[in-house]
Amino acid sequence: MQQLRINGERLWQSLMELARIGATPKGGVKRLTLTDADRAARELFARWAREAALEVEVDVIGNMFARRAGRDPSLPPVAMGSHLDSQPSGGKFDGAYGVMAGLEVLRTLNDAGIETRAALEVVSWTNEEGSRFTPVMMGSGVFAGVFRLGHVLEQKDLDQTTVEDALRSIGYAGDAPPHRLGAYFEAHIEQGPVLEDTKTTIGVVQGALGQRWFDAVITGQDAHAGPTPMELRKDALIAASRLVLEVNRIALAFPDYARGTVGSMQVKPNSRNVVPGEVRMSVEFRNQKDETLRAMVAALRQSLKSIEAECRVEIDLAEVTYFPPCHFDPAMVGAVRDAAGALGYTRRDIVSGAGHDAVYVARVAPTAMIFVPCEGGISHNEIENATPQDLAAGCNVLLHAALSRAA
Amino acid sequence: MQQLRINGERLWQSLMELARIGATPKGGVKRLTLTDADRAARELFARWAREAALEVEVDVIGNMFARRAGRDPSLPPVAMGSHLDSQPSGGKFDGAYGVMAGLEVLRTLNDAGIETRAALEVVSWTNEEGSRFTPVMMGSGVFAGVFRLGHVLEQKDLDQTTVEDALRSIGYAGDAPPHRLGAYFEAHIEQGPVLEDTKTTIGVVQGALGQRWFDAVITGQDAHAGPTPMELRKDALIAASRLVLEVNRIALAFPDYARGTVGSMQVKPNSRNVVPGEVRMSVEFRNQKDETLRAMVAALRQSLKSIEAECRVEIDLAEVTYFPPCHFDPAMVGAVRDAAGALGYTRRDIVSGAGHDAVYVARVAPTAMIFVPCEGGISHNEIENATPQDLAAGCNVLLHAALSRAA
Repeated sequence: MQQLRINGERLWQSLMELARIGATPKGGVKRLTLTDADRAARELFARWAREAALEVEVDVIGNMFARRAGRDPSLPPVAMGSHLDSQPSGGKFDGAYGVMAGLEVLRTLNDAGIETRAALEVVSWTNEEGSRFTPVMMGSGVFAGVFRLGHVLEQKDLDQTTVEDALRSIGYAGDAPPHRLGAYFEAHIEQGPVLEDTKTTIGVVQGALGQRWFDAVITGQDAHAGPTPMELRKDALIAASRLVLEVNRIALAFPDYARGTVGSMQVKPNSRNVVPGEVRMSVEFRNQKDETLRAMVAALRQSLKSIEAECRVEIDLAEVTYFPPCHFDPAMVGAVRDAAGALGYTRRDIVSGAGHDAVYVARVAPTAMIFVPCEGGISHNEIENATPQDLAAGCNVLLHAALSRAA
Repeated sequence: MQQLRINGERLWQSLMELARIGATPKGGVKRLTLTDADRAARELFARWAREAALEVEVDVIGNMFARRAGRDPSLPPVAMGSHLDSQPSGGKFDGAYGVMAGLEVLRTLNDAGIETRAALEVVSWTNEEGSRFTPVMMGSGVFAGVFRLGHVLEQKDLDQTTVEDALRSIGYAGDAPPHRLGAYFEAHIEQGPVLEDTKTTIGVVQGALGQRWFDAVITGQDAHAGPTPMELRKDALIAASRLVLEVNRIALAFPDYARGTVGSMQVKPNSRNVVPGEVRMSVEFRNQKDETLRAMVAALRQSLKSIEAECRVEIDLAEVTYFPPCHFDPAMVGAVRDAAGALGYTRRDIVSGAGHDAVYVARVAPTAMIFVPCEGGISHNEIENATPQDLAAGCNVLLHAALSRAA
């Protein structure tokens, strides 16, 4: 059994065939959740699952579960999966890899005629991306009890279509009852540069960074750039620029994967020769520890006072979202590390900076993730790329980690 | 004659009646050049001019000249004026004040039965604002030979209407031949806070700051804010923020009315959890002296190198516009200063930070400007405001300065 390997060529071909659904001219994928493209991807996955003799179920939020029975029906299944939906300008691997890797593991076990004690499942979670409907990680969030089903079903897209109507219109409002998972493994491209930068094949994911998101509004005073002397200005963009640098300084000053980002900024009136009177901007901090997040926010609030005084502006900082730090199950993380080690792949512990379905599933089942490198760390982009070798390596780790829990 | 004063009440009423044309709900004016609102304002001005026995002419670019003959037809006229067009969300006084003040001067001379040696003219220049058609200060620029007429007539607005068609459609494509001006005075609200801040009634305008405008493009690398460690980022917004602060630092470090402004900024992709890969921004410097402007630009270019290296981005800085510093005619400036002194108004020398029609007219005729305070220094805004007393004071200065040249 230790010699067992997945079929990397079949995995790659499956990913490439799946990527034709919603393919974009630049080589990416546009497969927004609960659209016709999403339906086509779901139907291809379901067909392949049935061809692999798996039993396919769909739950009330459209999550799909493709099950391969185990010898002991009393055991909860060991699940593997991710999502089939994409960003509007997404890539071929984000999400799709985790689902196809799970399917490849079961095909491999079929080929080898290997039975497991616990059942194995491949899961495709609905609407991980949150591009069409919010909240993000909707299907796994409902599964884990993070979101109330009724509330989620009422959410609308820009065309005022509800999640409930969209589920019905593509035929994926299912009725499978909730069930417990014995374990959950999610294989995913890293979506960051660390593995590539350190020439590492397997990222053994410890958990996910906590996140605190803020909206900042800086109010100064519009003024003509020509007639207004420097000393009489209340320039909101000067204050905003200081705030950007302060967020960066704070992130660099703290340990434990501290990250600080200003990703969006709107300047008003945004005219070349008018001193900006208002700037709206996002601020977010990420860290592995809640107490460090608190210290980062405190440091920022302290800086705001001097920026306000020195730039003669007012700054309103409002917290809009909080994701607590997530720590995966040590035994599950150990199973991933051991599998990577036994297979001889270079590996390193890593913490996910982004959210994943696994972060919600971790609340109701022992969970771990496997990262593989992606080219340039680029994701959520049509040029997102990964090598067949790395994808196969991650899938072999998934195979052996899952077997260690299910056999 | 030294006792002669304009009728401040009549001036105010004329401004208020004119402001009804294109009036906005918030008390401002939307009177884009060569629109129906502009035509209505022009026709009101022409009617008032004829009622004051003035001869009205329109030239090829729609500039209007309302002339009161002098005793010596061989002398070139002494002109006063400004513009009747407004910004999309403009105020009641920017431009309109200079035209109505000129008209009030001639009404006052009519009432007092005073003849002048040189003719007097009230001028309304076409499209000072540049909001609908570029370039700004179009009519005075054509008059002064700065722009080629054929080129200007071909310019299009967003609806693809040309200046030529717009002039014809409102009936203001005239045929008055070019003529020489013996002098040009322009009364204007300051559009800045200096007079109000120093409790001064009359600004004796020395000239206008030179301006150098740039477009900067900062290219870094988009990256997910979550998975991308701080040290692997190429954050274009960090670099942009440093550039904003550098422009400010340089402006504060130089003498002679140095100003530096970043008024507009576009962040891409401008998403909360994506490290910005590109920022486009404006940069402009203003100063009274060309050599100081050069030194400011050199200081900025020097800073760019370290910002590029430290933020691992590329910065492209392209100059897009240059207005040389303008120095008004010393004798004309003296006439304004003397008139303000004789009238007993508080006064101070001031340099215009913004462009005005007078800056172009100064190239072909002895020119000066008179500034009066505006509330909070606010202009290009519907809440733009000025007091009847200050407007009357500026008009009295205009009266006596013009008389000193024409009598």
